[in-house]
Amino acid sequence: MSQLTVALDMMGGDFGPSITVPAAAQALSLLPDLNLLMFGLEAELSPWLTRLQLDQHPRVQTYFCTQQVGNDHKAAYALRHLTDSSMRNALDALASGRASACVSAGNTGALMAMAMKVLNTVPGVDRPALITRLPQGDGGYALLLDVGANISCSAEQLVQFALMGEQAAQHILGIASPRVALLNVGAEANKGNEAVRVAGTRLSQTANLNYSGYIEGNELFIGRADVIVCDGFVGNVALKTSEGVARLLLGQKLKRGLLSKMLTFWLKKRLSHLNPDQYNGASLIGLRASVVKSHGSAGSPAFFNAILQAISEIEHDLPASIAHRFDTAPQDSHAR
Amino acid sequence: MSQLTVALDMMGGDFGPSITVPAAAQALSLLPDLNLLMFGLEAELSPWLTRLQLDQHPRVQTYFCTQQVGNDHKAAYALRHLTDSSMRNALDALASGRASACVSAGNTGALMAMAMKVLNTVPGVDRPALITRLPQGDGGYALLLDVGANISCSAEQLVQFALMGEQAAQHILGIASPRVALLNVGAEANKGNEAVRVAGTRLSQTANLNYSGYIEGNELFIGRADVIVCDGFVGNVALKTSEGVARLLLGQKLKRGLLSKMLTFWLKKRLSHLNPDQYNGASLIGLRASVVKSHGSAGSPAFFNAILQAISEIEHDLPASIAHRFDTAPQDSHAR
Repeated sequence: MSQLTVALDMMGGDFGPSITVPAAAQALSLLPDLNLLMFGLEAELSPWLTRLQLDQHPRVQTYFCTQQVGNDHKAAYALRHLTDSSMRNALDALASGRASACVSAGNTGALMAMAMKVLNTVPGVDRPALITRLPQGDGGYALLLDVGANISCSAEQLVQFALMGEQAAQHILGIASPRVALLNVGAEANKGNEAVRVAGTRLSQTANLNYSGYIEGNELFIGRADVIVCDGFVGNVALKTSEGVARLLLGQKLKRGLLSKMLTFWLKKRLSHLNPDQYNGASLIGLRASVVKSHGSAGSPAFFNAILQAISEIEHDLPASIAHRFDTAPQDSHAR
Repeated sequence: MSQLTVALDMMGGDFGPSITVPAAAQALSLLPDLNLLMFGLEAELSPWLTRLQLDQHPRVQTYFCTQQVGNDHKAAYALRHLTDSSMRNALDALASGRASACVSAGNTGALMAMAMKVLNTVPGVDRPALITRLPQGDGGYALLLDVGANISCSAEQLVQFALMGEQAAQHILGIASPRVALLNVGAEANKGNEAVRVAGTRLSQTANLNYSGYIEGNELFIGRADVIVCDGFVGNVALKTSEGVARLLLGQKLKRGLLSKMLTFWLKKRLSHLNPDQYNGASLIGLRASVVKSHGSAGSPAFFNAILQAISEIEHDLPASIAHRFDTAPQDSHAR
């Protein structure tokens, strides 16, 4: 199936090929229809491909490039000067139709800027948003956006994020009428900043949207909403704070002894659904093709999960669903 | 000791006298030097005072008033029309010197507005900030501000919060040279919004300040900083998100059986330092007297802890320390 081709930025993140290659090998062995395009620096990528026997793999095409986007690179610099980077080449493969989705663990700002330039947004969408899953106490998931692509957002952008998130919840989580909420500092109508209040008013007037009002930080995990909308600064802090609390609990050291070991095993099992390695894959949505962002400090299981997420978005054709929502909702505020 | 007199808004929060009176009784029995001024509606407060035998207590003075600030009241309305509320009367007692600190679990916006009008800020401080303790993995605490009093903040305000937080860490936590950090979405200098970036530059140039740069949400609990500064929207979401994760883990249901009960007991003990009831008291600092805000949904142990926090601030004379810091730091940015 030619549509199951994913382009991978093998250099992104804190560990590069040492985590991206094992994740790719795992995905290839699990999914017989999957084809991978791999982009990276030859000196770093080749040894890992050889070691994991992917250098001659029939479903792998490797493209060596000369540049790499670092975590310290500004987006504008990367956009202008890093045109032969692994990130840029992976996105170009998407734009030319050689792949249907892209995965990178690289610099979020650079990925956002390059993706907007190379892929463009769906008509009606001003800016893509970074969206991620949050585990819920009832065992399900909610979607949180934006988690870091847009540091400050207008009311108009928050409204667009709500519609984009609604489509993701319908098509990725399979929820027919997702409950959409705005993250705020209180439940009352007068709470929050101007952008959130105006977005709340507009969303309550939006046709065919299951808008359920404001939600607070302590309600992010209790199954109160399926889509939770906020600006990228707030969403990034909320997501990383919840990771921090989970890691604090997972990482606490215990005394030795059998009972302590049993307890630790049990605790880790209970907390596994909050483990960033299990759910950290975020997507840039609102673009004309699927771009999945894996956490920069993530390990191989997280990058593997990000590849699975890219495949899921290809199969559900999320970009087309979003385009359709914005095209058929002319009465909504975004259409002005 | 006349200075150990605390004014209590007995009506604030979701449960009113049913939690404030038991907390007050506990504080009185524990602390023989403590005097309490209690403000509330007679019909609701009196039965609880009788039930807990505080109606004739030698160290309690009760003032019945006619109004109460609700959670839905806008700050401007409360300021203008609720002048005989329990909250306002408690703050007036502070302003007139009849008490040295005030505790309320009521509407944060109204408390902030009334406190600013009645008490005024320390010279050099534009707006008070709500500050709270965050438990750290090493067993200590960090201070986080603002957690909800100022929804959006200028760089200038963030700089002021940093100096106010430094004083609180020195005088309440006893840390000689507290490490002060800004909460941001990344560690690199180009990350974040304009206000955070400008505040970062100014703090790095501030004399006699142990500024340690940006901190991310996943580092809030790992002992990387003693004072963490952000605007009130971000701080409120971060604090409530961490509470939400802790409650999710504390509240999970287990199967029956002895082993499960042992495990639950052990888990709750391990998580107790993240339990909002134990650490939820926040203070409005930057005012000319101490005002402690207890969580609206908190129970009696939390309100009791808030009373202890008020006493600690009286004993350390935090308002005077902040005034001194702003008075003796004319080279800092706030002095312009």
